[in-house]
Amino acid sequence: MTTYPETQAELEQFEAEFADQLQLSTEAQDLLFREARTANTFTDEPVSEEQMRAIYELVKWAPTSMNNQPLRIVLVRSDEARARLVDLMAEGNKPKTQAAPLVAILAADNEFHEELPRVFPHFPAAKDMFGGNEAMRLRTAELNATLQIAYFILGVRAAGLAAGPMTGFDADAVTREFFPDGEHRALAVVNIGKPGPDAWFPRSPRLDFDEVVTTV
Amino acid sequence: MTTYPETQAELEQFEAEFADQLQLSTEAQDLLFREARTANTFTDEPVSEEQMRAIYELVKWAPTSMNNQPLRIVLVRSDEARARLVDLMAEGNKPKTQAAPLVAILAADNEFHEELPRVFPHFPAAKDMFGGNEAMRLRTAELNATLQIAYFILGVRAAGLAAGPMTGFDADAVTREFFPDGEHRALAVVNIGKPGPDAWFPRSPRLDFDEVVTTV
Repeated sequence: MTTYPETQAELEQFEAEFADQLQLSTEAQDLLFREARTANTFTDEPVSEEQMRAIYELVKWAPTSMNNQPLRIVLVRSDEARARLVDLMAEGNKPKTQAAPLVAILAADNEFHEELPRVFPHFPAAKDMFGGNEAMRLRTAELNATLQIAYFILGVRAAGLAAGPMTGFDADAVTREFFPDGEHRALAVVNIGKPGPDAWFPRSPRLDFDEVVTTV
Repeated sequence: MTTYPETQAELEQFEAEFADQLQLSTEAQDLLFREARTANTFTDEPVSEEQMRAIYELVKWAPTSMNNQPLRIVLVRSDEARARLVDLMAEGNKPKTQAAPLVAILAADNEFHEELPRVFPHFPAAKDMFGGNEAMRLRTAELNATLQIAYFILGVRAAGLAAGPMTGFDADAVTREFFPDGEHRALAVVNIGKPGPDAWFPRSPRLDFDEVVTTV
């Protein structure tokens, strides 16, 4: 991946002002944050099962509340499943979801609390606490699965691949179609592969530190 | 930071099976995912404004829907503000929130659409689309701010610091107390600093790939 002229000045400013404040290497910063982009086109190089396992085995260590890990992932590999998913994407997302080497549906498991006795053994009451409060359980599932979606996106980039995360799809219909047990909620669809020609738009501006951060 | 005996076997298995699938260096993998832990104690080494700027200038590049960037951050630096926040934390989170070198309140800006003409200029109708649909706007704000919370946590780790993210607090009260404009929602509080003595519990188990990922 290359550096974009429109961000070159910001990158150079970062080097001059902030780089020595970070322990993460410049190469890793570029790979995960600065040079990586949301891809809209892909080459036809396939994404292997081994790559997806490597990504998961890395990002599974990132934190969730009470280690609850509610993210569930459906890898759409068959033509039949791909066609069902593409039908439910927003119009502008259909062509790239059809063309991507691999597409993942990322969902929250609303019954994550069933695993808590195993994944968070030092608080045995946790399972019943969530079991008895559905509103809290669904909110916790969605918040933590969303954190894990972000970890997953960065994990895809860590594998040298581009991610194309999308929320433009019929979430109720995707949930019904791909999670018929009624215990999940689809939150994002992510195209995965090597970026193709004209894979991205010019980089859009980010908010300044002083617009986002206040001190009290 | 050191490697933990209880995960040593998994780390070695990862090296043997998956490491060559990732482009990210082993050092960066360890810094961000494998050796980093949620800290419950901290040294008294301060966290500087420059460190926080470096973290923001890195993670601001990570993706959000339509580049909407709804995350807002309040850095709690005064004793007076710290006391107000600690009062609203869950009992078990009070001592560490009192003791951490720096505490950040992470919130969603429900009025993020006001910035869309500037940050997503290629779709001028976006501002009004969100302005006319409050339910969609709040949902979009929360989902994308939550993605950004995950990026922020990894950014703290990229700076060689430990993060202690928490959702155990009175979110309504923290929102009223620290965002009195009624346009935000507090989603997480994150303690930040160098890990202190006995900073973490033994590492809890992660779900297996085959429990989380299915293929269709």
